[in-house]
Parts: sequence; structure tokens; C-alpha cells
Amino acid sequence: MNIRQVILERGLEGLFTQATIGLEKEGQRVLADGKLSQMGHPSAFGDRSFHPYIQTDFAESQLELISPVTASSAEALRFLGAIHEVTLSHLPKGELLWPLSIPAVLPEADHILEAQMGEVDTRYREYLTQKYGKYKQMVSGIHYNFGLTEAFLMSLREDGESLAQVRNRVYMTLAQRFLRYQWILVYLLGAAPWAPEAYFKGGDVLTEPVRSIRSSSFGYVNQPHVQVSFASLEAYAASLCRLVDSGDLIAEKELYESVRFRGSQSVLDLLDKGIQYLEFRIFDLNPFAPYGITEADARFIHLFLLGLLWLDDDELTEADIQRGRDLKEATALSHPLSSAMDLDEGMNFFAVLEAMAEQLHLPASDREILAQKIQQLQQPELTLAGKLFQAVEEKGSVRDLGLDLAQANMTAVLDRPFGLQAFANMELSTQAFLADAIQYGFGLEILDERDQFVKLTFGDHIEYVKNGNMTSHDSYISPLIMENKVVTKKVLAQAGFAVPDSIQVTNLEEAGQVFHRVKGRPIVIKPKSTNFGLGISIFEEGTTDQADFLEAVRLALLEDKEVMVEDFMAGTEYRFFVLGGETRAVLLRVPANVTGDGKSTVAQLIEAKNDNPLRGDGKSTPLKKIELGDLEVLQLKAQGLRADSIVPEGQKVYLRANSNISTGGDSIDMTDEVHPSYKEIAVAITKAMQAEVCGVDFIIPDIHLPAETSPTSYGIIEANFNPMMMMHIFPAYGTSRRLTTDVLKMLYPEYP
Amino acid sequence: MNIRQVILERGLEGLFTQATIGLEKEGQRVLADGKLSQMGHPSAFGDRSFHPYIQTDFAESQLELISPVTASSAEALRFLGAIHEVTLSHLPKGELLWPLSIPAVLPEADHILEAQMGEVDTRYREYLTQKYGKYKQMVSGIHYNFGLTEAFLMSLREDGESLAQVRNRVYMTLAQRFLRYQWILVYLLGAAPWAPEAYFKGGDVLTEPVRSIRSSSFGYVNQPHVQVSFASLEAYAASLCRLVDSGDLIAEKELYESVRFRGSQSVLDLLDKGIQYLEFRIFDLNPFAPYGITEADARFIHLFLLGLLWLDDDELTEADIQRGRDLKEATALSHPLSSAMDLDEGMNFFAVLEAMAEQLHLPASDREILAQKIQQLQQPELTLAGKLFQAVEEKGSVRDLGLDLAQANMTAVLDRPFGLQAFANMELSTQAFLADAIQYGFGLEILDERDQFVKLTFGDHIEYVKNGNMTSHDSYISPLIMENKVVTKKVLAQAGFAVPDSIQVTNLEEAGQVFHRVKGRPIVIKPKSTNFGLGISIFEEGTTDQADFLEAVRLALLEDKEVMVEDFMAGTEYRFFVLGGETRAVLLRVPANVTGDGKSTVAQLIEAKNDNPLRGDGKSTPLKKIELGDLEVLQLKAQGLRADSIVPEGQKVYLRANSNISTGGDSIDMTDEVHPSYKEIAVAITKAMQAEVCGVDFIIPDIHLPAETSPTSYGIIEANFNPMMMMHIFPAYGTSRRLTTDVLKMLYPEYP
Repeated sequence: MNIRQVILERGLEGLFTQATIGLEKEGQRVLADGKLSQMGHPSAFGDRSFHPYIQTDFAESQLELISPVTASSAEALRFLGAIHEVTLSHLPKGELLWPLSIPAVLPEADHILEAQMGEVDTRYREYLTQKYGKYKQMVSGIHYNFGLTEAFLMSLREDGESLAQVRNRVYMTLAQRFLRYQWILVYLLGAAPWAPEAYFKGGDVLTEPVRSIRSSSFGYVNQPHVQVSFASLEAYAASLCRLVDSGDLIAEKELYESVRFRGSQSVLDLLDKGIQYLEFRIFDLNPFAPYGITEADARFIHLFLLGLLWLDDDELTEADIQRGRDLKEATALSHPLSSAMDLDEGMNFFAVLEAMAEQLHLPASDREILAQKIQQLQQPELTLAGKLFQAVEEKGSVRDLGLDLAQANMTAVLDRPFGLQAFANMELSTQAFLADAIQYGFGLEILDERDQFVKLTFGDHIEYVKNGNMTSHDSYISPLIMENKVVTKKVLAQAGFAVPDSIQVTNLEEAGQVFHRVKGRPIVIKPKSTNFGLGISIFEEGTTDQADFLEAVRLALLEDKEVMVEDFMAGTEYRFFVLGGETRAVLLRVPANVTGDGKSTVAQLIEAKNDNPLRGDGKSTPLKKIELGDLEVLQLKAQGLRADSIVPEGQKVYLRANSNISTGGDSIDMTDEVHPSYKEIAVAITKAMQAEVCGVDFIIPDIHLPAETSPTSYGIIEANFNPMMMMHIFPAYGTSRRLTTDVLKMLYPEYP
Repeated sequence: MNIRQVILERGLEGLFTQATIGLEKEGQRVLADGKLSQMGHPSAFGDRSFHPYIQTDFAESQLELISPVTASSAEALRFLGAIHEVTLSHLPKGELLWPLSIPAVLPEADHILEAQMGEVDTRYREYLTQKYGKYKQMVSGIHYNFGLTEAFLMSLREDGESLAQVRNRVYMTLAQRFLRYQWILVYLLGAAPWAPEAYFKGGDVLTEPVRSIRSSSFGYVNQPHVQVSFASLEAYAASLCRLVDSGDLIAEKELYESVRFRGSQSVLDLLDKGIQYLEFRIFDLNPFAPYGITEADARFIHLFLLGLLWLDDDELTEADIQRGRDLKEATALSHPLSSAMDLDEGMNFFAVLEAMAEQLHLPASDREILAQKIQQLQQPELTLAGKLFQAVEEKGSVRDLGLDLAQANMTAVLDRPFGLQAFANMELSTQAFLADAIQYGFGLEILDERDQFVKLTFGDHIEYVKNGNMTSHDSYISPLIMENKVVTKKVLAQAGFAVPDSIQVTNLEEAGQVFHRVKGRPIVIKPKSTNFGLGISIFEEGTTDQADFLEAVRLALLEDKEVMVEDFMAGTEYRFFVLGGETRAVLLRVPANVTGDGKSTVAQLIEAKNDNPLRGDGKSTPLKKIELGDLEVLQLKAQGLRADSIVPEGQKVYLRANSNISTGGDSIDMTDEVHPSYKEIAVAITKAMQAEVCGVDFIIPDIHLPAETSPTSYGIIEANFNPMMMMHIFPAYGTSRRLTTDVLKMLYPEYP
């Protein structure tokens, strides 16, 4: 019974389409002229001895970007995208990431520095240089790691078969068929038509463009006599061990087949333990895709692999496999615009793929992908090599085309410095946190995207993080204390801090009873729980009237069933961000404003200020664009201005009375300006709250004067759990405070 | 300028009415015949070396119950009530708390055991016995501790006056005036008319009932020549030191005045430091109030003290104070039904109180209290002594009346074993937690009653607790993990636990796409976040139809925007309560049911089962009464029964299909029945959640068989933070598990 029949009979359709997928993508760091960078691996990318995402391949200039193992090609590609964004944003100034598999310019071989990865590794690279030369090592590509789920493999077992046996049976079948049909992938996705002259030094020279030098015998391949058998895993193991024993290969990993069996360093282990997944190595970089491969192509490769398993169970002979190798070589070396080597075989295989899509109820998007590939099969100019050939013809040189594309990829990242496009539907603070985790090399899993729930690992140490700074380092009770303003005040007052006097009321009758206690005093009336400023009224000294007071309480009661009547303190409000026993950032928020230049109108000044890429909708950007709506016009009117008024040079015009960032306000970092005494108080308050991470809102009349215990020296408005981080990381003015990195350091004090 | 004028001129009305109030109430443990208990202080009340609430006074049988310092008389009385409830519920079987100041029966003096509080203390008690005899020590009363707020006292300061000076000035004035007018309180609240013959042994005998033996010279007073001056604090200190130096008093604390200056062990300290608060000691136990004093009387005492400060600033001479002492002695020794000693003076003082109430805008309830006291001033039969005299006349003996009242107080507590009446508007689990904290002697403050927020102290160690088990011992992230079912499943699956397979969908289109993956399998469809069972549908094996499936998803989507489609596992659901690395309780919930006796109808069986005091509305009681509504009648019908059907003996009839306690279900403790392997898994799951307190819901086919890793051996439904405790503490059947005590032990491992 073949695999397709078992799937259909045992109802395994759902399990069959699940997979584990990981991508590894190599690429050269180049300069603006297309030459390889001579700088060492950037220290910003942390320690290569453990970094899971950002590594070097053969050369120091050759980055290897590795996605985590994910459940889908889309997810793998998304992580690969995020890793690219982090990488690009931390490349040394002037460097780009070369978007093609083969560099347009190759330096003297002496100028290619092998990756500095420790002695053993260096010796291995020297051996490779000796044997293959340095130039072939400069070629980059994508490795596609593919595994079926254990549940699916378990379900495929026949009587008496162990899990290891079914693993080896299914993966060997997949590998054989891959070798047989890989030419179709080279035809569709090959994209390495040229190499600089130096590449061919001392050997045959390709004078015409081809589909993929990299996938051909001109690529980085073993010597012709190095051959392994794919008749069975046992035969494979035996032939590979022989090659190593004879010294033809220095180690198993020196075998460069287009498919590798993964799960152990030693192939003999695999016989017992079973193959864990396959690594497919024939994919050239797609220069038109920012990260070397499109999501559609990554999905297509998954479908292609499923299709191989879906084929009828014809036993493949060694000769069949050789036929596949021959077709691949011929395809790789054919002209980018030449027809498919065996169109009939290709069309037949796609017929199987389409039938499978039907039977598995695959989504329309998958069928669309297949339809496009069928078209490419018939029209070589639509293939990747075909399109690349045409684009270079048009541009005039590979170098110029590659540099244009590289620059565009870089610009797209630099235009959005505050987030990761790959995770654009998560909160900005989570995006910044993920970027840091990727940069420093923490194991990363998005547990729940909508809920901003992330899992981190470093060695055996697991931490869970929600919304960027909700972690195990805070206790369960501290956010509950902060959430409750009454409890917060009691805790702070008992700890000896200057807390405004406060009375709690739940209805207008109670409010009436307390009126005489607050009459004439400056007070603020606010709902017990609110973070949005709704239902808050302020009475200045001597202005409380009983009717107004009751009306204010009534409005606050609309927001919460308990209302606080509090002493109001004059001064400026500052947000202190405390983490790990230290005040990391202090921020002043200022209402939306523009400053005149003596020439521009208010509207023009707003437009100019809004030009800052940090300003946008205020959700997908750290700051919000200033609007010019009814409220702003009223505010202008109060200052004797209109939208078309020209503002004298240096005059500050406010568009809003409230200082919220969400209504176009400015955030200004004041960390270095504030007297240290307040920072100490903020830390002590955080301790009193039994918290590790806390945003403390102070009212301070003069930040340059030291805090005193007198009630007029400062006041504490509230303490906030899960305090916002983006306004400190990307303030409108002043120094950026990378708080997400502080969170990581707090969670992992052992990080080197 | 007198204090009243300063209050009015400086707008201190609000501050003046604030106060710190604490109550100390003594009382004898007696047996059913009214004789003093000969048992030692019950060990259930913990260690007297630090217990803040439950202490002994002179004798081992004489409890001293102490409220914390609170912000109002109502709050102090409430705590005193709670302390009484805890005390009564843990008295040795057969004991009662004698409700009057003087016991009805006194044993041979040799049989009175002094409180066993350590050597120094014992020697002091022996000295007192020598000097005053044991019988007078057997008299009990209430001490009313009263302080003004620091903010008020600060605001009263005159130029150059220190805070200590204003404290001493104001409190000395209050003490002098109290001594002058205390007779009014004795007249209104005195309640110690009789003492047994033995009490008078070897001295003058009172043959007629009086208002208060305890407040008279027959009470526990100093020898006649022991006199201190209240002319000023300096004079007081000098005269008191002289008495101690001369050996007339062994220590300052041997002075038994009706007011004491508090704040230091040594009166000389007070001169520098200032008096912190006053202790008023003349209050007899009110036998008609369950805790020795009514809330109205406690408030009246507060008003009385404010009224003393409100009086015009007439300097009181030593003679005035002596006149007050004389009036008190005469009042105490007057017949309970005799008129007030100086009605005019009394009426004048109440006129001041009423004017004060007017000017301070005191609530109507305060004015009502004053009106009643004025009536009592004019009608002695309405005073406490008057009413007690009449009640004893009616009953025939003090002993019988006292025992009746004591028994009623005890019954009221025992009828509600699961909570504290004093905190009845808080959750039951918080009530149980508070009861434990009181019993074991933790410092206790209710930070926010509506929010179930409590502060505990033991020594310097502060802990905050919300909803009974939300504490600093759990991390911030663990409840967030548990709150999110997707994240919970991932964490559990990665940790290797048997978690049902689960797919998340957010709309009907996605649901349609996953249908083929679950078709035919037993599944449950549920909203991602719900704790109330809303929107959950179950499909048994082979019963999934696409239309029904989509309808179930649609219903679930009404409850949450994300819906889980999960493998459904057959078996029985159990709740495991894990705390501090141990499974403390395992519970089975069974749908509402009754068991037939061959005679009663279903309706009668329900009525009988509902008779259990644990059953009520399910909020203020641990279990819910079984209803007989439409759903129950339908359920009966399905079993071929009606409400008036007679059920054969031993037959179990279910009134509901769901097992929720909130619909009348039974909770059954299974902690000792469950195979230990599941308990270990529950602990391991709690660890994987990085939690300390966790309620894990298992599906287990057979609790007697050990757990295996196979997916059919057990399944985990979910892990719950802040798990319910009452159903384990008061199960319908099986052993009670006092989880609130476990929480306390977790928080305070240092507790002896």
C-alpha cells in the first residue's frame, strides 16, 4: 500500500499537511561597489558560539541567517524576514547584503578571510580551501529543512515497524524521489546565471548565462568520483562511511548532495534512531525577494515535497536516480530562456500535485501557486532565471542590478527603525523586544501572536514574556496592587512616600458627605481604575462648588463604580521607568505643538513635523501625527491663531491641552536632567510595590531640586505595571533608552 | 483660642472627625454551669508571646481580645467581631464566653490559675494577687483606645509649638475633661450591678444592685492613698514617679485610672515624645451585645470624646476633676433605675454634642445615636444597667441570663462555620483566609474590601493577598500563561504532558478549512477564554457533521473571538489543587442529586438535602441549594420521574446534567483516593506553568490506575490560577482541606 493510500484510508489528511520547516540562508556582506566587505563579523550580532539565527558560513563576510524550526513555510519565512531586518539594521555603515547567490565581484583569494570560529573549525575551512579553492565557497544559497510530524509518522507505521524504521522508510523514499525530480525545482527556481571571470580560474569557463551555476557541476560539488548510493539508508551509510574511511572525504559533512539526512552527526546513528528531517540544499537566492525566497516559493517547495510522497509507489532504481541527476545538471546548465528538459514529465508531476491539492482540500492560495508554476513550466521567460536574465539585460550588469536591489532592501528596513515588518501586527514594544532577542541570539517562539505571548530560551533557561515586559520576574501580586489605586496609595503611604490625600466614594450621597472635607482645596476627581484619562476632573484651589463637585463625581462614576477624590498637586508630570532596581528612563510628555519659523503657517509646520517617520497612526509608529481637527482649531483660536496663521520664529504653538502621545504629543527623554533623588524614590516605590518593572508617575515642581519629604516637594500620581516602553525607546527628542534590552538582561543575568 | 474655634477657623472639620480607634475586650471562658473553665488557654489560639488579637488577661481562663488599630469605631468593632467569631469557633467543646463583666460564680481563689505568660509576668501577677486578691482580677471590661490623626494635631499647632507639645496639650485636656464628665458614661453604659458573695469576702458588701461595681471603689482600683495629679502632664508624671519610687506601685502600669496616657512604657518619655493616644478603661461589658459593645455605643463614645474637645476652654481645676470622680463613684454605686446624678450637667453636655454634630455636618445616624442617649439620660430604665436589671428580674438570675446570652452568641457562630459574619460581604475564601490569619495571629489590614485585598504582617515580613491565594509567591507571568488556553497547551505539550490536540480558529471560513482534520473524531469546541462553560459543544466519535460543526464554532465565537477545536477525551473530570509543590486536595464534582429512601418524594428529598447549613445561595455559603425549576423537571422527566415521585431506597436521582457546584452539584473530596501518580503530574504541571498555586483539571478514566504517558491514560483540560478553595475546605462529602492555612504557611515559612 503506498503512502497516499494509507493517508486516505487512515484519515491522515490533516496530519500529512503539518510539517516542521526551517530555512537557512547564506549571503555576502558587500560594499556600495559590490565588493565583499573586508570587515570582520559585526560584534552587534553577538557570540557565534551559540547564536541560533545569525552565523557565518565559510567566509567572515558570508552571513548565514537561520530561521527557527517552525510549523509552516510562511512562519519560517517570517522569522527569516525578521532576522534579515535585525541583520540589515545592524550592518556596519555602508554595507549591504548581496541579493544573489554568486557575488558580482570577487577579490583576490588572499583577501577572503575564513570565518573566525575557533581552531578546529578554522582547520576544516583551510582544508576546504585547499581542496575546492575559496571562490566556490563564496556561493550562497538557501537550505530548506523539512520534517513530517511524529504523529503522522506514527500513524504510517505498519505492523511491527518501529518509529525509527518508519522514519527511515518515508524519508528515504522522499529523498530518492527528490533526487529524481529536483530538475523541476532547478528549472523553476534556479537563479545563478553568471559568475565573475575569476570564479572559473584554472578550469572550464561558462561563457553563456545558464539557469544555475550553483546547482551545476560548476557549483560547490564533490569531486566526480565521490558518489554515494541512495538505494537504501543502509547502502547510503555504507558508501558514505567508505568515502570517509578512504580519506576521499574528511568527514560526513563534506558530502554535498542536494539532500541531506539530518538528526545526527553520524549516519550510523540514524539507522537506529531514525532520520529526523531532511535538508534540501539546491535553492539559489531569489534576488527579487528581500530575504532570498518568496513566501509563495517556500510554500511551493512544501507542496512539491508533499507531492513526491503522494506519487505512486514505483520503486526507484539507481538508474532512475541517475536520470534525475542528469536532468538536474542539464537544466542547471541550460540557458535561462530555454524550454524545460522534459516538459511531459513536469506536466505529469504537476497533475499529481493538483490532484493532491484537490483530495487534501488545500486552500485556493495553494492552487494558485501551482497554477503559476505550471505556467512557468511552459514559459521559461516566467521562471526566476528567465526573469533575472531579462532584468540584467535591461539594467546592463548583474552588479548594478544586485546593488539596486540590495539598496532597496536596506532602505525598506531603515525607513522603519522602530519595528519588525515581519511582526508588524504585534505591538511595537513586542516587535522591539523580538528584534533584541534575535539580535542577541535567544531561542524564540511566538506562543500567541494576538496575545503578544513569547517564549525565550537560553540554554535550558526558559522565560515567558507577554507584552514586552510582563515576566516571571514580577510577582503576581504587584500588578494587582498597582491596578488598584486605593491599595497603591495605602501601600505607598505606609512606606512613607508623599501620596496625595485621597477619599473613596461610590455614590453621590457619599460624595455629598465628604464635600466639606475637601471644600476649597485643590482636588482631582477620578475613577478608581482608569488608564485613559476618562472621567477625570480637576478643581483648583478655592474653586470647588458643591454642585460642580457632585457633577464631577457623577461623571467619574460613569467610568468606574468607585471614585477617588484626591488632593491635587501643581507641577509637571514625569514618567519614571524602573527595572531591576534602577530608574532606566525618565520621560516628559508635552502636548502636540509646533514651533514657528516666521515663514510657515501652522498647517505647514504641522505637515513638516509629521514628516518624521516616527510619526504615524501612533500604534504602528512610536509617535502620532498631529491632527488639525476641531479640537486643534479651538486650541489655536484660544491662542489667537488659525491654521493659516504664520507663526513668528521661535514661538511655540500648542495644538492640544493634554499631553498624551496618542494625540500628537511629544515625548522628551529627561533621564539625565532629573535630580537623582527622584530616581531613588522611584526605585524605592517599585520595591514597596514588590515589583521589578514599574512605571511611576511623579508630579515634580522642579526636577533640578532634590526631593524632600515635604508634601509639596513632589507627589506620586500612580504606579503602573506593564509600563509602555516605545516612548522611551523612540522619544521625539532626547536620548533613546533601549528598555527591551534591559528586560532581556533582567531575565538572563547569565547571558555573557 | 479654644480647640473648637481653631477647627472652625482653620477648616479642620474633616481632620477632626478622623481618628484611630482600637478596642480591647476581656472575658471569661466558662462552662455550661457558669463556672470558670479550668482548662488552660486553648492551643488553637497559637502563641501568646506574639499574638496580636487573642491574649489572656490576669487569669488563664480570662481571654483578652484585641482589635487592630482602625480608622473608625465601626471598623474596630467589626474586627472585634471577627476575633470573637474565630475565638468562639475554636473554644474547647462545652465552653462559652461569659457575656458580663463579673462572673456569676467564683471558684475558690486557689482554683484560679494565673495566665501562664512567662516568669516575669507570673511574678507580677503573684504580686497583684497578694495586694488585691484574685477575685477583683476576674472582672472584665472593654478598653477604648483613641487617637487623633497626626495631620489634625499638626494643624492645631500654635507658633513655636512642637508636635509633642501639641499632643500633650490636647490629650491632657481630653483626659481632664473625661475625668470630669465620665459619670455620664457610667450612667449610660455601666452594666455590672451584681457580684457573687465571694467577691466581697473580707470587706464591705453591696447588698443592692448598682450601676457598675466595676467602675466603683468596689472595682479593681488602687488603694485610696494612691492618687495622681492631672493638673498637667508634668504634674502627672511627677506624682506617678513618686508613687513608684515610694513602692506604693510596683510599676507605672499598676495605676488603674479610668484614662491612661499611651505611647511609651515610661511616662517621662511621653514628655519628650508626646502622648500617642489615650486608653479609656471604664466600659463594662454589654451582655446584650455579642461582642461586649454595640456599634452605636462605640460610635457614641467617639462622639463623646469629640464633644469633650468641642467644649469651651474652661481650665479645669483639681477640684473640678475631683467633682468628676465623685460623680462617677456616686453614679456607679447608684441603683440601676435611679435618676442621673446631675441631669442638668448631662443635658448641657448633650446640647454641646448636638451643636457639634450640626457644625460638623455629621450624618443622621450620629444624631440618632445622640437622641437615644438623651432619652436614656432622662429615663434610667432605658440605660444599659436599667435594662440589665429588668432582664435579670424577669429571668430570675444573672447566671441563667448570662448563660442564655452566651449560648446564643455561640450558636450564631456555629451556625455559620464557613465564614466570618463580620466580613460577610467579602468572598467566602477571603473570609476563611481572614479567620485563619486571626486565629494564628498575623497582623491584618483590609486594604480594599470590595477587591478582596488584604495585607498581612508577621514581624517585619509584609505580604499582600488578593482573593485568598493571589500572592507574591506566584509570578506575574504564570496566571497570564494559564489565562491563555493556546499558550497553556503549548507550554504543557512542550513539557511532555498529555494535552488534547487542539486547533485554533477565528472565523467560520477557517473552521471550514480545518473540518476535514477533525471529521469523525471526538471533539470539543470551546471559546479560547471562558471559565463559565458558555459556548462549549461536544461531538462524540463519528458524530461530526459539517453544518453542526460550523454552528458549534459560531456559538463559541459569540463568547470569544478565538475558538479552540480540541480532541475530546472520555473520563471523569477532577480538580487538583496544588500549592507549594504539593497536591493539597483533589475534588470530584457531581451534578445535583438526591438519593431515595423509599418513602420521600423527589421534592421532599431535595428539601431535606437543602437543610444542610452549607447549602444556600452558593455565594455566601460553600454549596448551593438544589432548585426544582424547569431544567430540573426536564432532567427528572428524562429519568421517568416527577417532583412528586417517590424514589426507591438507595436510588440516585440526578437533577442536573452539569456538575457545577453553582447549580446544586456535590463536591466530594477524593484526595486520599486518587493514585499518587496524578498528584505528581499535577505538581509537575504547576512547575511547568512556573506557578506556586494552581488548580489543574484532569480527565481521568480510572483514578485507581497509575497515570501513563499514553494519550488515553489521562488528559489535562486546563490549569487555573486563583483556584477556588471553598469547595475543598467545605466539601459536601469527604475530608475538609484547610487550604487557606496552607496559603499562610507558604507565605510565612518562618511562622513557628
